[in-house]
Amino acid sequence: MNIQIIAVGSELLTPYYQDSDSLYLTRGLNDLGLSVRTKIVIGDELESLAAAVRRSRDEADLILITGGLGPTGDDRTREAVSFVFGRPLVLQEDIVASIEERFRRRGRTMPPVNRKQAEILEGAEVLANPAGTAPGQWLDAGGKTVILLPGPPHELRAICESQVWPRLRSRQRAFLSRRVLKTAGLTESEIESLIDGMYPREQALDLTVLASPGQIELHVAAASDVSAADADQRSGALAAKLRERLGRAVFSENGADLETVVGRSLARKKKTIAVAESCSGGLLCRRLTGVPGSSAYFLEGFVTYSNAAKTARLNVPAETIETNGAVSAETAAAMADGVRKAAGADYGLAVTGIAGPSGGSEEKPVGLVFCAVSDGRRARVERSVFLGDRVRVQQQAAQKTLDFFRRLLEEDPEP
Amino acid sequence: MNIQIIAVGSELLTPYYQDSDSLYLTRGLNDLGLSVRTKIVIGDELESLAAAVRRSRDEADLILITGGLGPTGDDRTREAVSFVFGRPLVLQEDIVASIEERFRRRGRTMPPVNRKQAEILEGAEVLANPAGTAPGQWLDAGGKTVILLPGPPHELRAICESQVWPRLRSRQRAFLSRRVLKTAGLTESEIESLIDGMYPREQALDLTVLASPGQIELHVAAASDVSAADADQRSGALAAKLRERLGRAVFSENGADLETVVGRSLARKKKTIAVAESCSGGLLCRRLTGVPGSSAYFLEGFVTYSNAAKTARLNVPAETIETNGAVSAETAAAMADGVRKAAGADYGLAVTGIAGPSGGSEEKPVGLVFCAVSDGRRARVERSVFLGDRVRVQQQAAQKTLDFFRRLLEEDPEP
Repeated sequence: MNIQIIAVGSELLTPYYQDSDSLYLTRGLNDLGLSVRTKIVIGDELESLAAAVRRSRDEADLILITGGLGPTGDDRTREAVSFVFGRPLVLQEDIVASIEERFRRRGRTMPPVNRKQAEILEGAEVLANPAGTAPGQWLDAGGKTVILLPGPPHELRAICESQVWPRLRSRQRAFLSRRVLKTAGLTESEIESLIDGMYPREQALDLTVLASPGQIELHVAAASDVSAADADQRSGALAAKLRERLGRAVFSENGADLETVVGRSLARKKKTIAVAESCSGGLLCRRLTGVPGSSAYFLEGFVTYSNAAKTARLNVPAETIETNGAVSAETAAAMADGVRKAAGADYGLAVTGIAGPSGGSEEKPVGLVFCAVSDGRRARVERSVFLGDRVRVQQQAAQKTLDFFRRLLEEDPEP
Repeated sequence: MNIQIIAVGSELLTPYYQDSDSLYLTRGLNDLGLSVRTKIVIGDELESLAAAVRRSRDEADLILITGGLGPTGDDRTREAVSFVFGRPLVLQEDIVASIEERFRRRGRTMPPVNRKQAEILEGAEVLANPAGTAPGQWLDAGGKTVILLPGPPHELRAICESQVWPRLRSRQRAFLSRRVLKTAGLTESEIESLIDGMYPREQALDLTVLASPGQIELHVAAASDVSAADADQRSGALAAKLRERLGRAVFSENGADLETVVGRSLARKKKTIAVAESCSGGLLCRRLTGVPGSSAYFLEGFVTYSNAAKTARLNVPAETIETNGAVSAETAAAMADGVRKAAGADYGLAVTGIAGPSGGSEEKPVGLVFCAVSDGRRARVERSVFLGDRVRVQQQAAQKTLDFFRRLLEEDPEP
């Protein structure tokens, strides 16, 4: 089946806006075992819009069009489809009434221009919009299906979830199962060489590797003509093999981020943490406190940029810094010990490094980072050298510290 | 001129990847006074790729194609263009030699598959790739221009900057001038009503308003057939009128972020700051320390989630918290005073609030935030209520605190 998505809107042809609706639509279609063949972005002018619809009509079996259903003169999607498919637009008074009602509930009167949103293609089914004024439309014509959807993401989603996905599911030929393994601590090329030869050759089984700084995700998708359980079994079998190869690098199989995994573990163990950051400048605290409920285990954080602050707040001996440098295993360990004691926490996390662009030397280059975890018995330290600009080094430093801590928490024999 | 961009790559038809190359290309074309009519995303299969190229050939005057120039069997852009434009591919041994040389410099041998990257459309000009193995190609054929470009962004940019933009500039019909006013402290609708009637009616003058949490940007673009100075004068005149209407909400006209504006002001005045955060959990520190050179003025930061930490670190009287609550103007002021003194800084910044999802009450709802700035003479406090989820409240809390401080710094009579 040839499926095409047309995103309508002149703003999508500027350098400022991406067509993100098509990502949502693609995910929904993929979940039904359907693939997208072509995506088109087109402006609001009727002529080019009609040309795009005509091309898709000639090529595709299913066309999803987002945007251009508003009330203003710029909104020409209905007209373009009407013109290309030869279906006149018919004003439906019951829809006018429901749009008026929507305005009334907000204490406002419907402007006359909004009547246009009640113009429906002859023979199309109306897809009620629970989140806005413009209804969607579903037209089956000449063996083709055209679906008109509003551009605002929450309206698009509301209509797809209540009406488009259920309708398409009833035509569904395949069942799909997806799994995501999130990993930290291995580079993309290390992952690729570990899973070498594991890329599936079957058409209905798919593996995609997605890399971001300090985190590689493996997306597994299986399709089945037989049943959802069959698809699930097949995606599960591949995921299990990948997990075996990748071992402890896998930190999540349910979509959770590293800070959420760490937070859940702390909450379960009823343990608390305190954080001391230098080079990452608050990012580690920010990630940990971004998790709802983190106040249960996150006691406090210190962004100790200066040596004086490291000594005053964290009780790092001035001698330790003088002898080894602020960026050293010894200082990192003393920071982790110090922040744990200062806050009265079960664990102290610390990170110190050179984020750049200046401050590096031959012996201690930009990107050198030490992270440390203290549990009161001892402080463990890990040394890394990260590539990239200041922000990228900071991101990797925070990610590495979280992952180092995650691994130590997993080893902890306590429940 | 009808300009179309085709982005080639099956990964761009998944929910995981956006076609970001086209944003870069659009910006470059816009800077030359050229607009994009249509963007198309297509997979790697030769048949659909050729169909897309054929459609664009029939419609467009200028076609930019990104991706599909790699060495593997998936890379079919050259073939598709060859097929549609009837221009055979000719292997150029000098390009083979330069690709071999590129591998040799890295101590490797060129795999035989890479020879394919030296296949050039008959009559096309080669666009040398300073950043990778696949050269670009520029074909003028039958009144149409087709430009083939590699997909990796740094390769695309290297070729465009060295060869594509200069060539297109020589055909240029218009001069373009752009300006960006960044604002904080006003909502999108407040901005819209302030600039009501200022949207230009001339075709060659354009105003776009872009909103993100706590920050609204106004993008002005002017085109001129006459000269760059004329375009510049016209964009400058509109920017000046906007600035007059928006007043102190405008914090930057050169692209700088709020933390950079604040940082430059501190560096100029030779003043230092210390930061105490509660609800924003490290984000404020993270933004301030993300600026290169921030260690000159950022002394230290405290993420004081618990009341005990606010008292122990910042010397906030337990009574202040007990009487007024941790989220109150009084506590915010005491945090700002306390962090300034503890760190020995010129200014203390503090923010306390309820980020949610839990912790709100009727009197103090989720989203309630107090930010405070102390300069040693007094602490000034501002109260806000932000909408949105936890992360959005945190983002707005940090932005508001930075903007509150920026405005106070501007009022400061010292140089």
